[in-house]
Amino acid sequence: MQFELDRRRPGQSRITTPRKETDTCTILSGVSNGLTLGTPIAVNVPNTDQRGGDYSEMSVAYRPSHADATYDFKYGVRAVQGGGRSSARETIGRVAAGAVAKKVLQKISGTEVLAFVSRVHGVELPDGAVDFDKLTLEQVESNIVRCPDPIVAEKMIEAIDKVRVKGDSVGGVVTCIARNVPRGLGSPVFDKLEAELAKALMSLPATKGFEVGSGFSGTLLTGSEHNDEFFVDEDGSVRTRTNRSGGIQGGISNGETIVLRVAFKPTSTITKSQKTVTRDKQETELRARGRHDPCVVPRAVPMVEAMVALVLVDHLLQQYAQCQLFPVDPILQAAPVTKESEPTPV
Amino acid sequence: MQFELDRRRPGQSRITTPRKETDTCTILSGVSNGLTLGTPIAVNVPNTDQRGGDYSEMSVAYRPSHADATYDFKYGVRAVQGGGRSSARETIGRVAAGAVAKKVLQKISGTEVLAFVSRVHGVELPDGAVDFDKLTLEQVESNIVRCPDPIVAEKMIEAIDKVRVKGDSVGGVVTCIARNVPRGLGSPVFDKLEAELAKALMSLPATKGFEVGSGFSGTLLTGSEHNDEFFVDEDGSVRTRTNRSGGIQGGISNGETIVLRVAFKPTSTITKSQKTVTRDKQETELRARGRHDPCVVPRAVPMVEAMVALVLVDHLLQQYAQCQLFPVDPILQAAPVTKESEPTPV
Amino acid sequence: MQFELDRRRPGQSRITTPRKETDTCTILSGVSNGLTLGTPIAVNVPNTDQRGGDYSEMSVAYRPSHADATYDFKYGVRAVQGGGRSSARETIGRVAAGAVAKKVLQKISGTEVLAFVSRVHGVELPDGAVDFDKLTLEQVESNIVRCPDPIVAEKMIEAIDKVRVKGDSVGGVVTCIARNVPRGLGSPVFDKLEAELAKALMSLPATKGFEVGSGFSGTLLTGSEHNDEFFVDEDGSVRTRTNRSGGIQGGISNGETIVLRVAFKPTSTITKSQKTVTRDKQETELRARGRHDPCVVPRAVPMVEAMVALVLVDHLLQQYAQCQLFPVDPILQAAPVTKESEPTPV
Amino acid sequence: MQFELDRRRPGQSRITTPRKETDTCTILSGVSNGLTLGTPIAVNVPNTDQRGGDYSEMSVAYRPSHADATYDFKYGVRAVQGGGRSSARETIGRVAAGAVAKKVLQKISGTEVLAFVSRVHGVELPDGAVDFDKLTLEQVESNIVRCPDPIVAEKMIEAIDKVRVKGDSVGGVVTCIARNVPRGLGSPVFDKLEAELAKALMSLPATKGFEVGSGFSGTLLTGSEHNDEFFVDEDGSVRTRTNRSGGIQGGISNGETIVLRVAFKPTSTITKSQKTVTRDKQETELRARGRHDPCVVPRAVPMVEAMVALVLVDHLLQQYAQCQLFPVDPILQAAPVTKESEPTPV
Repeated sequence: MQFELDRRRPGQSRITTPRKETDTCTILSGVSNGLTLGTPIAVNVPNTDQRGGDYSEMSVAYRPSHADATYDFKYGVRAVQGGGRSSARETIGRVAAGAVAKKVLQKISGTEVLAFVSRVHGVELPDGAVDFDKLTLEQVESNIVRCPDPIVAEKMIEAIDKVRVKGDSVGGVVTCIARNVPRGLGSPVFDKLEAELAKALMSLPATKGFEVGSGFSGTLLTGSEHNDEFFVDEDGSVRTRTNRSGGIQGGISNGETIVLRVAFKPTSTITKSQKTVTRDKQETELRARGRHDPCVVPRAVPMVEAMVALVLVDHLLQQYAQCQLFPVDPILQAAPVTKESEPTPV
Repeated sequence: MQFELDRRRPGQSRITTPRKETDTCTILSGVSNGLTLGTPIAVNVPNTDQRGGDYSEMSVAYRPSHADATYDFKYGVRAVQGGGRSSARETIGRVAAGAVAKKVLQKISGTEVLAFVSRVHGVELPDGAVDFDKLTLEQVESNIVRCPDPIVAEKMIEAIDKVRVKGDSVGGVVTCIARNVPRGLGSPVFDKLEAELAKALMSLPATKGFEVGSGFSGTLLTGSEHNDEFFVDEDGSVRTRTNRSGGIQGGISNGETIVLRVAFKPTSTITKSQKTVTRDKQETELRARGRHDPCVVPRAVPMVEAMVALVLVDHLLQQYAQCQLFPVDPILQAAPVTKESEPTPV
Repeated sequence: MQFELDRRRPGQSRITTPRKETDTCTILSGVSNGLTLGTPIAVNVPNTDQRGGDYSEMSVAYRPSHADATYDFKYGVRAVQGGGRSSARETIGRVAAGAVAKKVLQKISGTEVLAFVSRVHGVELPDGAVDFDKLTLEQVESNIVRCPDPIVAEKMIEAIDKVRVKGDSVGGVVTCIARNVPRGLGSPVFDKLEAELAKALMSLPATKGFEVGSGFSGTLLTGSEHNDEFFVDEDGSVRTRTNRSGGIQGGISNGETIVLRVAFKPTSTITKSQKTVTRDKQETELRARGRHDPCVVPRAVPMVEAMVALVLVDHLLQQYAQCQLFPVDPILQAAPVTKESEPTPV
Repeated sequence: MQFELDRRRPGQSRITTPRKETDTCTILSGVSNGLTLGTPIAVNVPNTDQRGGDYSEMSVAYRPSHADATYDFKYGVRAVQGGGRSSARETIGRVAAGAVAKKVLQKISGTEVLAFVSRVHGVELPDGAVDFDKLTLEQVESNIVRCPDPIVAEKMIEAIDKVRVKGDSVGGVVTCIARNVPRGLGSPVFDKLEAELAKALMSLPATKGFEVGSGFSGTLLTGSEHNDEFFVDEDGSVRTRTNRSGGIQGGISNGETIVLRVAFKPTSTITKSQKTVTRDKQETELRARGRHDPCVVPRAVPMVEAMVALVLVDHLLQQYAQCQLFPVDPILQAAPVTKESEPTPV
């Protein structure tokens, strides 16, 4: 859990917010002698480096494109220190829970969830640059921007540095894969696996888009180009040669690697001067102080992994409830794909 | 309700499946003398033109990229006639419920939900071609592809005709707007309005991507370019000059027009021959008969509207529960924006 | 399913409403060739013998202690034919679903759910008169009041006949047992098994009370008298010698027979004249016509069984989700008690 | 909140457990300057007087009729200190949340929730001894057993003292009323108000029975005796002369006082020697040490109030969502009954 929180914490490198937080976690309940007890697991992660003064201007005027205006519209209150309810600090809870979910997935089905930065502003990792079957956590963690290609990573860092020194920000894209996902997770209508993943990921702060498999670019193909043809592999499993479906067909996982992409907008809090209005409707200019991320995607990588892991573990539990009472024909329900699998080009 | 079902029904034009269904709906319960009774509204829409024989090959082999393989993996059963559980016929229920939701929105807050086709294969409606404040249902319904620009619509129809005659299919994009959405709908963390919309829309068959506001292209901007600056309009409302947020900030609606886009892949059932495997794991070729849509997006338009309307009405109810008990300062909570509003460029 | 619906249907004997309904069910979806398909099971049970005219007086005045006043207070509409939303006809759906749940329980864990009438007005089946380990469905169904003791049953029928001829009604108690319930069903805090059962049963029309195990009379004992002491039976299972807990301890089933009791008030619709008010607040007298049950408990027996079966099957699914991922030590988690068990006196 | 926690805390009098806890609460989030912020309210109440050693015997053998056996059957773990997950200490959270719920009810609809002890072992407060319209919190709090009748209270205290000195325990009944509940709360089928209350109350530790209005004794009446006749009061409200319904008809509140009763069994942990088995299935005797309540009902009073308040506030929110969008005819939907109301005999 601490490892994952360290990947998320502020101040981890020069391209994140300079605010220093150790984000040290303490487990208060639910675990004893290294085992969960069946009771809720409560985790405490105190704040240490928050400067209330940084938020003084913002307590008067709304930050453009930030949640503090809409929060006020809805609830009629403001609690701006640290961003209030809309602070990305709430993602600590997601990452902590995701650490537990990853462990369950690893143990039950050998499922691995791995995300990385595939775009920062105009710098994009080309399609096919990453071999989804061989990608490792070490490759992702080998640089501060969390892009597994060291040359592209260097360009991304440059792009962030360029806006950072101006007090501006940039957006980017995080790609996430899940390998060895058992077949059959999901649901055929409203709770499709892609729908649940979309909700989970679009609930992260600053997200503007979600794709699974071929995504928006899949609309440029014809059906005969897009369809993933089936074959029987040497182990007797029904597999697909391509994976434009992104591991999910009709709301249900098919055993191929799940592939998805999430768009994050540029951080809204910037130190450049912007026009805005105050709570009592006076037009004004705001130049935010505070210490904010010039680009959120490097820190978003563990958040994306956490949300994907939480959705998958939920569906794994549902699968046991729904389909393990009367186990289906073992010929159909292949065991989770745990072997070294063939590369499946997207 | 029947009007919306007619927009969805098969056989409505040459660019949809030639299968003829009238999709005539009968309300069985929940409504009396033109008023709802507080009881569930049951609607019956019988099938009339389904040819079981069309599905005979498919009962043996799995259709590539179709849900019938994953459904079998999960449940160990096949019920292929009409596509079984995975038939897009289930969207009748969504469209019927959406018709009720639209009526509630119209009555309570003057909210209008309107979708249109913005891309078919390579043919795209340019950004800014549609004035979101003036778009009408009549413009959308003025042609069989449901694109409000008649010249682009013609090109889209040509693109569909081209693959239709070959038995192939193409994908596309549906854009949806919601005008006069009250401020304050949504939730700040897990149930963000954009997250709920993403789930609702990614639960539609054949979807591969979702965007709100600036979407994936927003990642190409800097924060100072992307932020929507605030101003006070002549009515004393806090508004934004631009709308890259797409009407939602931090999970909560801000009163601007909600704008979102959904990517639909090319229909998987095509009459071209494709490699696949049978249920007992023999490799084979499949050339689907049956009568399928060469492009789903014209019929997807009412489905997208329905899902958006259902999410909005859910959140309108929640808003009454959460925030009307102790109404907030009326200065903050502006009435729903019901006036003729300024154009807000995306 | 039809067998269960026949146990519930009106007109089955002289002590139920004389309204004749065959309540013939047709399965519309979800089942094919005798197997469920993983899709929702829709069942149609049309009304045949409903006389709208019977409800004419009631359309003006509220029936005392009936839901039609509160329904109108809440929704502002009345739909009185057949009792409207508050008609006990809605219990058809419960009984039909319960028939499926019973089949699942029987197949998965050998669990049997069996209810019977234990009190009608002042006529009560004495404690201990029924051996919970030997009770059969045949004994329950051997008479029209559904009390397994033929002598007490006769007295109950007399009590009902006595009020029936006067157009009045009486209440009663239904006792329900569930045998061979696997250990471990339930949850330790908010969703305790007894809490879920209480909600399910108190959602049946006309219920006023719920007890599990020793119930209200357990308050008359001391802890040393009430506690169920443990022993190890010849199969090596941890069992209790008594069963004042009613098969549930701390929200979780312990493998002993679940025992619960439900109080049903006298039917509110009677043909005796009563004081009431009209919708426009005029005081009046009402003498209901219509054909109503002089005592609901004989027909409530299958409803009680259905609700218990539905709760148990829900918890069986949850148990598979929560506790079968990492199966617990088999020494602790004994198999469901499927053997002929020792009598466990309450 | 602290006032309510003080009513629940251990060591408050000689008839509760002698374990001393101050149960001092600290609000960690969600409140600022005396106002809620729309964010979750986190409350911390640390343990101070827990003696691990008291639980040493119990870590080996299961306590009869206690949840520690079933918890172990389900999860395969034991965490016995303080009773583990099954400790009634979890009710602190219920009482703290209930304090907030009570404040909302008071403010929105003038609703008051008040409980008291109506039976301890064989000592029962007679029907009609308490005037439900005049009962005050002061009367309830005027003695350590929380029975508003001082003479009966004295007998109850004696009954508890009698078993206390022997290390044994007794059960009892808590009656709860809710005054000025708005009409229309609840739902007509599965989520009936009485069903939700039943679940909430049967989720409290040690409960064995639940009644609303006439309860089990209502089965002894005929319909003509049991029905609550309507009249129009001087304010023009539709009211009932009697209240055997207990303020709820057909799942929906009718504006009369809600009346319910909850049975609590004798505390299972006693210091008398009892037969039991160890985790490894050896038969043994257990004489619990530790400091336990000889009777839980005095401390259960605030718990019962809290659960009732939480259910009512949930339904108040739902009512705003469902029925305030299109407000119903004001003639029908009387304002919450906030006036000094007529006595309504049960």
